[in-house]
Amino acid sequence: MPSYKAPLEDVNFLLNDVFQIDRYNNLPGFSDASADVREAILSEAAKFAEEVLQPLNRVGDLEGCVRHDDGSVTTPKGFKEAFRQFAAGGWLGLSAPAEYGGQGLPVTLTQTIAEFQTAANMAFGMYPGLTQGAIAALLVHGTEEQKKTFIPRMVAGEWTGTMNLTEPHCGTDLGLLRTRAVKQPDGSYKITGTKIFISAGEHDLADNIVHLVLARIEGAPAGTKGISLFVVPKRLINADGSLGGSNGVSCGSIEHKMGIHGNSTCVMNYDGATGWLVGAENKGMQAMFVMMNEARLGVGVQGLAMSEVAYQNAAIYARERLQGRALSGPQAPDKPADPIIVHPDIRRILLSIRAFNEAARAMVVWTSLKSDIAHRSADEKERQAAEDQLGLMTPVLKGVLTDTGFANTVLAQQVFGGHGYIAEQGMEQFVRDARIAMIYEGANGIQALDLVGRKLPRDGGRAVMAFFGEVGAYAKEHGGDEAMAPFIAPLSTALGHLQQATMWLMQNAMAKPDNAGAAATDYMKLFGLVTFGYMWARMAKVAQDKIAAGDGSAYLKTKLVTGRFFVERLLPETALHLARIQSGCATTMELPAEAF
Amino acid sequence: MPSYKAPLEDVNFLLNDVFQIDRYNNLPGFSDASADVREAILSEAAKFAEEVLQPLNRVGDLEGCVRHDDGSVTTPKGFKEAFRQFAAGGWLGLSAPAEYGGQGLPVTLTQTIAEFQTAANMAFGMYPGLTQGAIAALLVHGTEEQKKTFIPRMVAGEWTGTMNLTEPHCGTDLGLLRTRAVKQPDGSYKITGTKIFISAGEHDLADNIVHLVLARIEGAPAGTKGISLFVVPKRLINADGSLGGSNGVSCGSIEHKMGIHGNSTCVMNYDGATGWLVGAENKGMQAMFVMMNEARLGVGVQGLAMSEVAYQNAAIYARERLQGRALSGPQAPDKPADPIIVHPDIRRILLSIRAFNEAARAMVVWTSLKSDIAHRSADEKERQAAEDQLGLMTPVLKGVLTDTGFANTVLAQQVFGGHGYIAEQGMEQFVRDARIAMIYEGANGIQALDLVGRKLPRDGGRAVMAFFGEVGAYAKEHGGDEAMAPFIAPLSTALGHLQQATMWLMQNAMAKPDNAGAAATDYMKLFGLVTFGYMWARMAKVAQDKIAAGDGSAYLKTKLVTGRFFVERLLPETALHLARIQSGCATTMELPAEAF
Repeated sequence: MPSYKAPLEDVNFLLNDVFQIDRYNNLPGFSDASADVREAILSEAAKFAEEVLQPLNRVGDLEGCVRHDDGSVTTPKGFKEAFRQFAAGGWLGLSAPAEYGGQGLPVTLTQTIAEFQTAANMAFGMYPGLTQGAIAALLVHGTEEQKKTFIPRMVAGEWTGTMNLTEPHCGTDLGLLRTRAVKQPDGSYKITGTKIFISAGEHDLADNIVHLVLARIEGAPAGTKGISLFVVPKRLINADGSLGGSNGVSCGSIEHKMGIHGNSTCVMNYDGATGWLVGAENKGMQAMFVMMNEARLGVGVQGLAMSEVAYQNAAIYARERLQGRALSGPQAPDKPADPIIVHPDIRRILLSIRAFNEAARAMVVWTSLKSDIAHRSADEKERQAAEDQLGLMTPVLKGVLTDTGFANTVLAQQVFGGHGYIAEQGMEQFVRDARIAMIYEGANGIQALDLVGRKLPRDGGRAVMAFFGEVGAYAKEHGGDEAMAPFIAPLSTALGHLQQATMWLMQNAMAKPDNAGAAATDYMKLFGLVTFGYMWARMAKVAQDKIAAGDGSAYLKTKLVTGRFFVERLLPETALHLARIQSGCATTMELPAEAF
Repeated sequence: MPSYKAPLEDVNFLLNDVFQIDRYNNLPGFSDASADVREAILSEAAKFAEEVLQPLNRVGDLEGCVRHDDGSVTTPKGFKEAFRQFAAGGWLGLSAPAEYGGQGLPVTLTQTIAEFQTAANMAFGMYPGLTQGAIAALLVHGTEEQKKTFIPRMVAGEWTGTMNLTEPHCGTDLGLLRTRAVKQPDGSYKITGTKIFISAGEHDLADNIVHLVLARIEGAPAGTKGISLFVVPKRLINADGSLGGSNGVSCGSIEHKMGIHGNSTCVMNYDGATGWLVGAENKGMQAMFVMMNEARLGVGVQGLAMSEVAYQNAAIYARERLQGRALSGPQAPDKPADPIIVHPDIRRILLSIRAFNEAARAMVVWTSLKSDIAHRSADEKERQAAEDQLGLMTPVLKGVLTDTGFANTVLAQQVFGGHGYIAEQGMEQFVRDARIAMIYEGANGIQALDLVGRKLPRDGGRAVMAFFGEVGAYAKEHGGDEAMAPFIAPLSTALGHLQQATMWLMQNAMAKPDNAGAAATDYMKLFGLVTFGYMWARMAKVAQDKIAAGDGSAYLKTKLVTGRFFVERLLPETALHLARIQSGCATTMELPAEAF
């Protein structure tokens, strides 16, 4: 059976030392999260993930969710109890405003904790994750009445939230959606249509479910310009706030999926269900994007989380499994064989995963801080810069963390040999669960297009120029530091590749957009590698400074070796992506469709 | 539901035009496989795979195999009937010698057909695949009596075969195995022990199962030098050849696995079962290696097969699914959206898979031909050269085709968006099924070590030098051909990288074997890319010549574009592998085991 330990030492190093989040104590909520409070919260969160959520992970996979004839859905054994405890612990509203019952703490903290919850039990973690996304959307676009009606109950875990976008014939291209909304005399709407792939669409964890639904108001324009957002509760709410009768929305079936069996993925049928407009008419896409950006960050964290838990179990197995002898001679001559961790190829796998995990975790903290600043800073310029960075980094983080996170679960499974293919070991579940993160909240190809087509050119490239400026300045500042040379030189090379790729896009994609499309995925991966390189340089510098100041911990030594593995083995991939980008779209676009 | 069409046009192009197998008509069996006979056989095999095996693929996944309390195992509905048809069609003994009931046709043909069978139904294809492996081992090492007793019945499909190597505590490191063999007065042995992960270990497809079992004879040396190979039938055989009583071997349980549910993966308990020595005492590893080399080729084919069927379904979906508009403007303005094949990122995925599939298929034919020559040529020098090449290419083919084949099923699944995650679509089954091929018959890390540690230095590097000579000569021969420049220049660069990597290993791995271990996987991938580059150059040349001679088929045009995609987008990865190899083992080996 797999195990999990939350990486508290690494998280504390990032929050306290690398990003020094106490520097942001001027932002609302940050001073409440002082170092000791933070560490207490993190260690409670770790305990909950390790002791309550992780033991339910395999049960969730085996049992899955069951839909009954009346349309109700039962979650796996233990989920309901765990969700009660989760809600009682206040984890749902950690970053929600105090006026709605939340604790107002930084999103950075919530995202850090989300990693623990997901690593322990990804299918479970989606229930609160979606609820937090719905809270975020209502906070920005909901009326005061909507906020008061829905948010405190979601913060308390009495109700949960969902996102309803996809329909059978449209996922990425929401302009095609057919769900209709008809205005009623009382200002509400009757919603009718079918939504598919609705995570947590129906379940037994909470008394009510708050569906956020995209639909087209009668007479609205075609395409995405005619889409509005509605809030549609599973059960109607009486004037006194108590639960009323059931609304016209029901779960038609649940999907048989590759993984995340513990989360109910529903076909939701809306049959004249009563809903209320969220935000302005026909501005549903903008409103939904608020939720999607939060959600995309959260999905990126899922990639990291699955990679981390897979790594931990592979490392344990590699230290314990005796098989063969070290190439350099027996390392455990008293045993029938050496543990397989003596083999360079096993270490290559483990270090590849670990070097990603630690960079990805740094990127999550760095990006979440931008989210906090963007939402909480009083300084407009600072807010603007943070929003720029957040917008730029969101597709990279979602795409690269889930692609690599999934690939890493496959690598970790390989360490187990044949045993990795057997269900009881749990490694194959990580692979199956992690797979979805590359698909939902915008398939990764869409993230790449969002980066290249929208985020890059926006405001004349202001965000990307700021990023180049920041990384370039960092490299320059530490270019003369001999100890940092193993990190700075490769970072500068990689940044150069990204700048060349960006230049190539500027020169070639305006006139021929297919050049952008054919380059998009490689550009996203290149961007991710450079960001990781920057994260590693910053972590290495802080580790070196702490070591120089007398800290002799094994953690810091391991950090530096892992960082060197990253720059030696993983970062050089930037050149490959640049070559692919520069090869253009001609060959890719040459064949007629029927030739495939 | 997924579909499958065997790639007959591509196979015929390879056999007839690229490798011109009629040139080998001097070898036994080849002249029986004249072009028309070959095409008839291939088209029958295609039909069987498409019409009989493919429709059983999802049933096999859903039902899996069921073990009953008496230890018997039932295969999924339809498998038994299909296996009867398969046997009746003569497919099991296509390449087996005529004296044992086979048809004596080239292994090249059998491997080509194995692709069809596996693509249609991987779990099913393993039953005949293992039987063919057992036939191969007995042909080389069995006594005349053993051959006569077992081979004709396996060729007829009345009996099937298995390989029993792995035990709970040992897979890769067979030197640790504990299964015991005690010699009996009649010359037979009593075999006792537990074997795990035994594919097709117990089932209801045949009257008897011929287990080939590795065990240690009482008093034999420790380690791999004391291992012998035994043949242990499930049911004993009477003197007249009829089936006798059951032997002391039974299926203790079947594994719950990630995929290939239609194949029964058994724990086999040997409890004083009667077995007979195959080959010499304590020479079991050599005997088993015959079977393993055959099997490794077959597993490589599985990687290709899964990649091919996944590609075909992704291409169909990409042509049909309407979503979004082309970046260059609407392509199907009469429809609500364009088919997603207009998007460069979708084409990037499809072409990446296809460019691999066609190169991998060429490599399978090329390598299988070496196998045929090695086994059938009367010319010792020719046989020797073919054996060298076969030995060198086997780990590359197994490792690279299964790694990339699996990765391609994941890419193909991505084309489906959320629908790819849903079981009914069948794409996620391809991913789960393909995953095992990276693990069994020697995990791919072991293939890489076999390449670097054994195959490369063997006979003073004779095999690798011959390969460099052949590819270098080909590049030189066509270096002046302008039409071939897009293929030859990148091939030469890639070959240069492989030669540099080889040189680096010669200089750095002798004194420090961990340098070889840390380089092994990257070296294997680099080797695979260069081989694919060579295959593509040869295919491109033949296609260009045919086009110049007036052949205007769409097939040839598509071939050339796909080849250009390979050299532009995939082949440049060689530089990355070289950089990783040259970074050495220091960082990889630096951390103590407890730091992981």
